[in-house]
Amino acid sequence: MEMREETERLMKLQEKMSAYRSAMSLMNYDGDTTAPAKTAENRAHAMGILTAELYGMNTAKETVELLDHLQEHVDELDEKTRRMTALMLKNIREMEKIPKAEYVSYRQLLVKAGAVWHEAKEKSDFKLFEPYLQQIFDAKKRFAGYCAPDMHPYDYLLDQYEEGLTIADCDRFFGTLKKHIVPLLSKIASRPKPDNGVLQGDFPDAVQEKLAYWLMEILGLDLQHVGLGTTEHPFTTSIGSHHDVRITTRYVPDRFDRSMFSVIHEGGHALYESHVSDSLAYTVLDGGASMSIHESQSRFYENLIGRSRAFMEILLPKLSELIPEKAEGVSTEDLYRAVNRIEPTLIRTEADEVTYSLHVMVRYELEKAVLSGDLSVHELPEAWNRLYREYLGIDVPDDRRGILQDSHWSGGLIGYFPSYALGNAYGAQFRQLMKKTVDIDACVRKGDLAAVNEWNRRNIWQYGRIYAPADLLKRVLKAPFDPEAYTSYLEEKYGELYGF
Amino acid sequence: MEMREETERLMKLQEKMSAYRSAMSLMNYDGDTTAPAKTAENRAHAMGILTAELYGMNTAKETVELLDHLQEHVDELDEKTRRMTALMLKNIREMEKIPKAEYVSYRQLLVKAGAVWHEAKEKSDFKLFEPYLQQIFDAKKRFAGYCAPDMHPYDYLLDQYEEGLTIADCDRFFGTLKKHIVPLLSKIASRPKPDNGVLQGDFPDAVQEKLAYWLMEILGLDLQHVGLGTTEHPFTTSIGSHHDVRITTRYVPDRFDRSMFSVIHEGGHALYESHVSDSLAYTVLDGGASMSIHESQSRFYENLIGRSRAFMEILLPKLSELIPEKAEGVSTEDLYRAVNRIEPTLIRTEADEVTYSLHVMVRYELEKAVLSGDLSVHELPEAWNRLYREYLGIDVPDDRRGILQDSHWSGGLIGYFPSYALGNAYGAQFRQLMKKTVDIDACVRKGDLAAVNEWNRRNIWQYGRIYAPADLLKRVLKAPFDPEAYTSYLEEKYGELYGF
Repeated sequence: MEMREETERLMKLQEKMSAYRSAMSLMNYDGDTTAPAKTAENRAHAMGILTAELYGMNTAKETVELLDHLQEHVDELDEKTRRMTALMLKNIREMEKIPKAEYVSYRQLLVKAGAVWHEAKEKSDFKLFEPYLQQIFDAKKRFAGYCAPDMHPYDYLLDQYEEGLTIADCDRFFGTLKKHIVPLLSKIASRPKPDNGVLQGDFPDAVQEKLAYWLMEILGLDLQHVGLGTTEHPFTTSIGSHHDVRITTRYVPDRFDRSMFSVIHEGGHALYESHVSDSLAYTVLDGGASMSIHESQSRFYENLIGRSRAFMEILLPKLSELIPEKAEGVSTEDLYRAVNRIEPTLIRTEADEVTYSLHVMVRYELEKAVLSGDLSVHELPEAWNRLYREYLGIDVPDDRRGILQDSHWSGGLIGYFPSYALGNAYGAQFRQLMKKTVDIDACVRKGDLAAVNEWNRRNIWQYGRIYAPADLLKRVLKAPFDPEAYTSYLEEKYGELYGF
Repeated sequence: MEMREETERLMKLQEKMSAYRSAMSLMNYDGDTTAPAKTAENRAHAMGILTAELYGMNTAKETVELLDHLQEHVDELDEKTRRMTALMLKNIREMEKIPKAEYVSYRQLLVKAGAVWHEAKEKSDFKLFEPYLQQIFDAKKRFAGYCAPDMHPYDYLLDQYEEGLTIADCDRFFGTLKKHIVPLLSKIASRPKPDNGVLQGDFPDAVQEKLAYWLMEILGLDLQHVGLGTTEHPFTTSIGSHHDVRITTRYVPDRFDRSMFSVIHEGGHALYESHVSDSLAYTVLDGGASMSIHESQSRFYENLIGRSRAFMEILLPKLSELIPEKAEGVSTEDLYRAVNRIEPTLIRTEADEVTYSLHVMVRYELEKAVLSGDLSVHELPEAWNRLYREYLGIDVPDDRRGILQDSHWSGGLIGYFPSYALGNAYGAQFRQLMKKTVDIDACVRKGDLAAVNEWNRRNIWQYGRIYAPADLLKRVLKAPFDPEAYTSYLEEKYGELYGF
């Protein structure tokens, strides 16, 4: 009986915290989409206060006592409550281990680092950013030391984004990818490149927006609960709970495929977010299991659906309606080849399906080297450029299109990148399984993804964060994770497409 | 010395509260502009929690003790701190007097009443809304009894929106207006109506948006700190402080003047909000002195500037650029007459300068009668229709375009309407004064309102809520408030325009 009362208190506490997170998500979303240009400082003022309030709520004596008490009676708790307790305690334990003053000055460092990174990127000058990046790596190392003194600091950081992920896992995983992707890429390079002129032109925002809403409908998103905004860097966020999800996109005037694939990608995230079980709303379990599981969904829709032959059959008629002058005389096969043109390029976010993971590997190797003490922050640009030559065979002309392209490090996101590549691989293995019961291509051709979405909902989405990512994978796959599902998919698809 | 420390605590407390208000303003703004259709419940969940937190902060023992202590040492406080203390105490005293359960059920009533009003308006059926409106009037009367047992309940309610305003003030004020406006209107009615065909057509949103941004620039708004959104019912709100202000508008496809004047109106509110002294940011003094002072600014720009001859001289070239087919062959005089066509109509928000106050008077008389016990809620529609015939000479065909047109009562805003008419009158008297040192028309013709804005900033805007509205008026006018400044303005302007 007692535990019922404590469980209720835990739920109330989470509801309260979710209101603060809701406010902060909305402030971030508004800042990136709608807010006037010079209102960031004003927003930071309110967010600073709400963050401190949330911190106080997390570390309050009664919170810690409640969670400790629940933890002591863990056997009497149901699965959900056990997981909530564990996740909240883990978070609090770490907050407690880092001296508050250090944590505050780290948060302040990030605010400055973000602005400096922007400027450094604009000026294409790593030297400006270097002292900040040095401090960020130093702080991360120190925090790892406080929180997990017996772990390699990079193992600790990987675990922040993907519970349980280690350097050993990544080395093995990336080793497999490399073994397949590098030779695949060199075979592709020897063939003529498909023409992608159909993707190029001059596409007004209003037309691209119509395409975006059509895509959201095709994906099966509920537009009563999922909104679309525009922004510089597309993202997905939920506001307070999975009942209100927002995706964003950016309309590139001369390439309609940029926004198209970003809408499908973010739409995949939004499908996941908005299909978490209603019983998890306003709790810490309302969201994706991990970043890589999240990416498995976004990249599943973006690539496995959106870049499939079947999808071209419904896309082409829509393009004929929206941009008749471009679509005229184009076959679904032309379109399929255009959106699957493989080419090593400089920018990760614009990379194709085959080269994408190589971009991630570069970042992984560099993070690992710095955190192992084998590389200094000062040496990063040179090492970056060397690895781009080695993995992708291209020369990086400047820092802007090299080491400074991503915002992650300036925001303290070190250890995050591997999620993207893992997501690709999980998605391919999910697809293998799904195909046993769902005719994916037939669904796509009908423009009705209900059966596909239902498979994902039943197996993945509904659970939110109830399971750790590794446990969720085990439940879904009922077999070990096998990155070769992904590499075989690439080899088959592009072997057929490029004719080898 | 001691007071310095207490003052600092007061500032910190206000900063903290401003973060919560910031979050809630943004949630409201987002809900009215951007949020997906069915996310209101989710938003209400977070807002309920944050409202309760803010309520708790306001009524906390340490808050009350701090304010009481400051109040006891009021002579040692500077003007600003004195005013903050007084305003916060007034607010808290009222919160304390209303039983919490009654307050909570009243807030819940309003949520339901809003939805029912929407439905009733759509169906044009007052009967649906009547029981809710009855409960709202009952609650307001009860609250007035708790908080100010010795006052007439309507005096108490008027004071909520316009500190110090009484029935006696309003009767005198509206009496003066009526004496002038009724005969003015009947003279106008005897003349031919100016043609306003230039305002009618088919105007794409994108074109109207261009006009809106041009207007914001002409007004002298800083677009780095003031944003524009679209919504069903235009409004202005600041997010956390005057450093981030949002206005909204609605594009009516067949009448570009609807959005144009709403942008100028909301732009006037935004000028006021964003020019409060920086020293008042994140305090309870960051905002307009009262609703009527606020309306004096919005309607100053909308009517005294936006419907002036001088303004037509810069508007016409812009229209020639944006809607050349409509502007062709139109003179500034044609345009001036078109935007100043006087005509009794059913809807307050679309009313012209002369009839506007009559719409307000109808509402004032009805609120007063109900709160005096002279009229029942049940009799309201009949009384409404009778007064529209009496004051405006028109028949109200249905509840939708009659008693149900405004959202105010469903939101509990009883006693608010007189602010609109007072604002008109204040603005006219401000203009008389301003003209002594500023050549308003010359500024408008140059398309540079800097001198006009500076007059308003120096006399009104910078002070925020430091002064009670009556005190601010006294400081600015250095003479008693004289509604005849307003009626003379109307008589001169429309006498000249209609030739009598």
